[in-house]
Amino acid sequence: MGSITLDDILVTPLRRIATQGGDVMHAMKRTDPGFVNFGEAYFSWIEPGAVKAWKLHTRMTLNLVVPVGAVRFVFHLPDEGFRIEEVGAAKYVRLTVPPGIWFGFQSRVDGSSLLLNLADIPHHPDEVIRQDVIDIPFNWQSS
Amino acid sequence: MGSITLDDILVTPLRRIATQGGDVMHAMKRTDPGFVNFGEAYFSWIEPGAVKAWKLHTRMTLNLVVPVGAVRFVFHLPDEGFRIEEVGAAKYVRLTVPPGIWFGFQSRVDGSSLLLNLADIPHHPDEVIRQDVIDIPFNWQSS
Repeated sequence: MGSITLDDILVTPLRRIATQGGDVMHAMKRTDPGFVNFGEAYFSWIEPGAVKAWKLHTRMTLNLVVPVGAVRFVFHLPDEGFRIEEVGAAKYVRLTVPPGIWFGFQSRVDGSSLLLNLADIPHHPDEVIRQDVIDIPFNWQSS
Repeated sequence: MGSITLDDILVTPLRRIATQGGDVMHAMKRTDPGFVNFGEAYFSWIEPGAVKAWKLHTRMTLNLVVPVGAVRFVFHLPDEGFRIEEVGAAKYVRLTVPPGIWFGFQSRVDGSSLLLNLADIPHHPDEVIRQDVIDIPFNWQSS
């Protein structure tokens, strides 16, 4: 974890393919940049106004895709400060987040947003460290 | 493909976990029933009124999850007829579909539905066979 920096977060543009009856949106291939392994895929809804923060995974690499709405992710390392990535249907990219980085997120649309995490290991509570939202000061109300 | 039957389609209930700020919805772990390998994950929107049919994958195993809306899947084998599974946020399950089965689907809500396919191989056009919706007669307007 000591050598991780906020620059190690990858932003990979994804294709949205216009298709009769409803678009197809890519998420991840096993040959894509950022793919480590497949451990688990799960969704997380983010309600309007809610902030989900802070978590740090000590072993999991996250691959984050937002097919519905828009989400502001805030990444944090004490030595570096913050990195902000706002992603979603209108800026359709995949974020690859290596272990060892604090992160939080919020929905940036009036409705709920939906996040898919394609993680390299199955969820395990022992590899998640949490802090309360107020313990790492960030102005979540900023525009 | 000769020994495949419609009973080989697995229906696996998935957990939706109430979480402050927005629920977490499971999709698949690598230790889950139906998991073969990870090849590609992609989303497909299904617009209201649209029918996406028919396709058959000769090599891909599909793992289908519908986190938004509701989708009627219709599976078909010429020797057997049809099998219908209606799934979505209100009946939150994963469908595992082995190769060799014809399928089509439609949204069953007023809005669009969103489908995630966790496929064991990356998409490749050479392993997809298509037929027009009218070539396998099914009453998509039935309730």
